[in-house]
Amino acid sequence: MKKFGITPLRSENFPEWYQQVIKEADLAENSDVRGCMVIKPWGYAIWENMQRILDDMFKKTGHQNAYFPLFIPLKYLESEAAHIEGFAKECAVVTHTRLQADNQGKLIPASPLEEPLIVRPTSETIVGESFSRWIHSYRDLPILINQWANVVRWEMRTRLFLRTSEFLWQEGHTAHETSTEAEAEAEKMLECYREFAENNMAIPVLCGEKTEMERFPGAVKTLCIEAMMQDRKSLQAGTSHFLGQNFSKASNIQFVGRNGEYQYAWTSSWGVSTRLIGGLIMTHSDDDGLILPPRLTPQHIVVLPVIHHEKDENAIWEYCVQIRTQIEKIYYSDCSIKVHIDGRDLNGGAKKWEWIKKGVPLILEIGPRDREKHTVSVLRRYSMEKYTLPIEEFIQSLSQELIQIQSGMLERARAFREQSTQQITSEEEFDKFFETQGGYAVTFFAGDRTIEKNMKEKFNVTVRCILSNETGEKVENCIFTGRPTQQKVVWAKSY
Amino acid sequence: MKKFGITPLRSENFPEWYQQVIKEADLAENSDVRGCMVIKPWGYAIWENMQRILDDMFKKTGHQNAYFPLFIPLKYLESEAAHIEGFAKECAVVTHTRLQADNQGKLIPASPLEEPLIVRPTSETIVGESFSRWIHSYRDLPILINQWANVVRWEMRTRLFLRTSEFLWQEGHTAHETSTEAEAEAEKMLECYREFAENNMAIPVLCGEKTEMERFPGAVKTLCIEAMMQDRKSLQAGTSHFLGQNFSKASNIQFVGRNGEYQYAWTSSWGVSTRLIGGLIMTHSDDDGLILPPRLTPQHIVVLPVIHHEKDENAIWEYCVQIRTQIEKIYYSDCSIKVHIDGRDLNGGAKKWEWIKKGVPLILEIGPRDREKHTVSVLRRYSMEKYTLPIEEFIQSLSQELIQIQSGMLERARAFREQSTQQITSEEEFDKFFETQGGYAVTFFAGDRTIEKNMKEKFNVTVRCILSNETGEKVENCIFTGRPTQQKVVWAKSY
Repeated sequence: MKKFGITPLRSENFPEWYQQVIKEADLAENSDVRGCMVIKPWGYAIWENMQRILDDMFKKTGHQNAYFPLFIPLKYLESEAAHIEGFAKECAVVTHTRLQADNQGKLIPASPLEEPLIVRPTSETIVGESFSRWIHSYRDLPILINQWANVVRWEMRTRLFLRTSEFLWQEGHTAHETSTEAEAEAEKMLECYREFAENNMAIPVLCGEKTEMERFPGAVKTLCIEAMMQDRKSLQAGTSHFLGQNFSKASNIQFVGRNGEYQYAWTSSWGVSTRLIGGLIMTHSDDDGLILPPRLTPQHIVVLPVIHHEKDENAIWEYCVQIRTQIEKIYYSDCSIKVHIDGRDLNGGAKKWEWIKKGVPLILEIGPRDREKHTVSVLRRYSMEKYTLPIEEFIQSLSQELIQIQSGMLERARAFREQSTQQITSEEEFDKFFETQGGYAVTFFAGDRTIEKNMKEKFNVTVRCILSNETGEKVENCIFTGRPTQQKVVWAKSY
Repeated sequence: MKKFGITPLRSENFPEWYQQVIKEADLAENSDVRGCMVIKPWGYAIWENMQRILDDMFKKTGHQNAYFPLFIPLKYLESEAAHIEGFAKECAVVTHTRLQADNQGKLIPASPLEEPLIVRPTSETIVGESFSRWIHSYRDLPILINQWANVVRWEMRTRLFLRTSEFLWQEGHTAHETSTEAEAEAEKMLECYREFAENNMAIPVLCGEKTEMERFPGAVKTLCIEAMMQDRKSLQAGTSHFLGQNFSKASNIQFVGRNGEYQYAWTSSWGVSTRLIGGLIMTHSDDDGLILPPRLTPQHIVVLPVIHHEKDENAIWEYCVQIRTQIEKIYYSDCSIKVHIDGRDLNGGAKKWEWIKKGVPLILEIGPRDREKHTVSVLRRYSMEKYTLPIEEFIQSLSQELIQIQSGMLERARAFREQSTQQITSEEEFDKFFETQGGYAVTFFAGDRTIEKNMKEKFNVTVRCILSNETGEKVENCIFTGRPTQQKVVWAKSY
C-alpha cells in the first residue's frame, strides 16, 4: 500500500488533514493564548512574499502606507450603528493600565481607564478620525492609504490561519470626492485581489457582490473574491467595501466641494489577511503535504546531496554547489530563484520527506551517478513526477519549468472548481446538489433574506456572491420564487 | 532678518521646535487615544526604508522572521521576577471580550476573562514559551528569530516617536547552547545596530554596556548604542541584551546537551523601534525643518517646474520629465534614486518650502533659463547651498553628490558630538560641566549605585554606558571615589 506524508488523508478527515499539513510543514502553531497563533518562520516567509507583492501592487495604484493606533475609544465605534452591532460581540477590551499585587501577592489589574479601549477589529473608525482632520477641501482628495497591521476579533471557534483571534492583514482606507470614484476604487482593489490570487497564489476566484445578509457592518456594498477549497467549501479570500457616506458621517469627514459647499466624503475600505495562507493550503496541498506556488515559495529548489560512501562526499558536495552557482549566475539577478543545499547530517529519506511536506517546488537528489553523468535528478513536488536531465538542459529550462508549475497549479485548481460547480435551474435540483457532495451551485436568484436564512438552516449554505461577470446579461426566473431576475449567484458552504 | 521654516528655533525652545519639525514635515500626529500616534505616509515611508535595510542585515546574519501573539497571559510575566517588576507599572490590561448595552443603552465591557491578558510590552516571555516547545536537543540550537511588531507600554508623559504608549519595533530573540555564544550574539547585534545607525541614519553612536541601574528588567547584561541629540542630551537608540539563563529558567527552555544531560538554554534579545525616527529628527534637522539622509529618504530629488508664463509651461514640463528620465535611466536599476516632479498647481515658494521642511536631499527648481541653457538649479538641503550645473554634469556627479551628503551629515553630527564631549578628571570639573551647557562627560567610574542616584537627583544625568572601546585599556582613579578602575563611562542627560 502506498504510504503518504500526511495522516489522515484528505478524503478521510479534511479538517484534521488541514491541521496536519500545517504541522508537518512547520507553518504555525497554537499558542497558550486562546485563539492566538504563532506563525513560524516557514509560514511567515510565505506571508512576507505575499506582503511584498501586494505592497508593490498597492503602491503602483497610488496608495501610501501609514500606521494608526491599535486602540479604539468606545465612542468611535458607537458612532456607526451597524458597525458596532457587527463587532461588539467579539472584541478585546482594555480596561486597566497597570498591575499591582493583592494581599496574597497575586497580580491584579489596577489603574482603571475612565473610558475602556477596544483593540482594533478593523480601523475604519480610527482612520476616519484622522481623515476628518486631514481633509478640508476637494483638493485634498482622493486620500489613498493602506496599513499593514494586526487586528483582534475574539472568536470562539478558532482554526490556524482561517479564524484566529489575532490575525495579520492589510487594510486599505480611501476617501473620495464623489460616490462614483469611491465605488470605482472598491472595484479596482477587488480586481487587484483577483489578479494577486490567480497570478501569484494560483488560486482561481469568483468575483462578485455580497448580499445584504453577508455585507460588512456599515458598508453600502461589499465585494469579494471567493475560492473553492478541496472539500468543495468556499473561502472568502478578500473583501472590498464601498462605504458610501456612512463612515464619513460617523467620523465627520467633511470638505468644501467645488461648489463652495460643505459635503461628506465618500469612502472605501478593503483587506486581505493571513487567512489567505489557509486558502493556499486548502487549495493546493495533497496527501503528502503542502505544495507551494513558485511565486510565493521561500525556496524554489532544495538540493539534497545523497552520499552512500564517505569517499564520495567532497565530490558530491562540490557538484551540488556547482549546480547552485550555475542557477544563481543565470537567474539570481532577474527572477531570484532561491536554491538551498540541505547539508544536515540526517537520513536522506527523512530530509526528502521534510521538504516534500514543506511544499518546495523542486527537490534535487544528487548522488554519485548524477555527478559522473553530469545530470540532475528532480522531483517535481506538485505532480510528484521524477525526471533526470543533463545539468545544462535543466538549468536552461528552469525558468520555463517554474512557470509551468505555477500555471499547472492554477489550472488544476480551476479544473477542480469547474467539476464541482453546477448550473442549477430548479429548487429540487438545488436540494439534491447539497444533499449529495455539493460544491458551487450557480442559480438565478431574485434576492430574499428569508430564503437565504432557510438555506443556511437547511444545508448550511449561503450566497457567496452575486456573480459580477454573469449578472445582467439576461433575465430568467429565480429558482426559488419564480420572479424574473438578472441576478446570477453562487451558493456554497463556506469557511 | 532671515526667516526660517520652523518656529520656534532650536535655540529658543528645543522640545517645541521638535514638535514643529514633525508637524511641518507631516511625519506623524497625536491621536485621540492617549499616547498613541498616527504615523503619516512621509514618516511611515522612512520607517519602511529603515525596516528593509535592517531586515536584510538580520537575514544576512542568519535570522528568520516569525510572529508571536499580541497578548501575554499574566502568569508568563510573573515567572521572571525582575521582568514583571519592570513592566507591571505601565501595561494595557485586557479584561473583557465583549461589549453590551447597559440600561441606558451605553456600551459596557462584558464577558470577563478568567485570567486577564496584557498587551505585550516586549515578547521575551511569550517567545520563551514557544522556544520551550521547539528546543529538545543541542542540535536544535541556535534558534535565531526576529519579529516586526507593535508593543505597548502605558507611558504617562509621551512625545511623538520618542515615547509613545504604542510603538513599532523589531525584537530579536535567540537561544544558544552556551553562555559564550549567547553573549557573542548580543554583541554581534549591537554592532549591527551601530553599523545601521552610522552608515544609514548618519548618526554617530557610542557603544557600551549599561550599568546595573539602567539594565533591562531580567537581563544579565544590557548593551546599547547612544546618540547625542542637538540639545546635547543622549538618546538610547538601540539595545541588545544577554539574558543568561534567566528567561530560559522562567519559560523552562531545556535541552539535552552533548553530554546527554538536560540543561537550560542561554538567550539573547535585541531591539530598535520607531524611536529611531525621533533620533533622526533631533540629530539632523535645522531651523528650516527636517533633513533626511539619502539612504533613508523616500524621495531623493524633487523637481519643481517654475512657470512664469503660460506659454513656457509645456516646454518646461517636458524638460523636467527629461531630467527625471535621464536620472532614472542611469540610476534606477542599481541604486534606485527616486525622483518626483511636483506639478501641483500651487505657489512655487510654498511648494519649495514644503519640500525643504520635508528634508528631501536635493530640490531642483527648473525655469525657462535652465531649459534654454540646458542646466539644472539645485538646492542642497543639508547645507542649504545653491548651485547650477549643466544637466550632463549634474547627472554624472549625482551618485557622488548623494554619497557626499550622506557622509557630510555623519561628519557634521560627529563634529557636534566631539565639541560637546569632555574628558573629565575630577568631581569639581564634573559639576561645572553639568552646571553649564553639559553634553557627554567621559570619566573613570568604579561603579556605585548611590553615586548614580545622586547624580540623577543633582543634575538629572545618568551613566549612558560603560564605553566598550575605551574600557580596560588602562587603570585610573574613579573621579568620585578615588578607587582605581579600568571602567570608562559616559554621563549625560537623556531622553
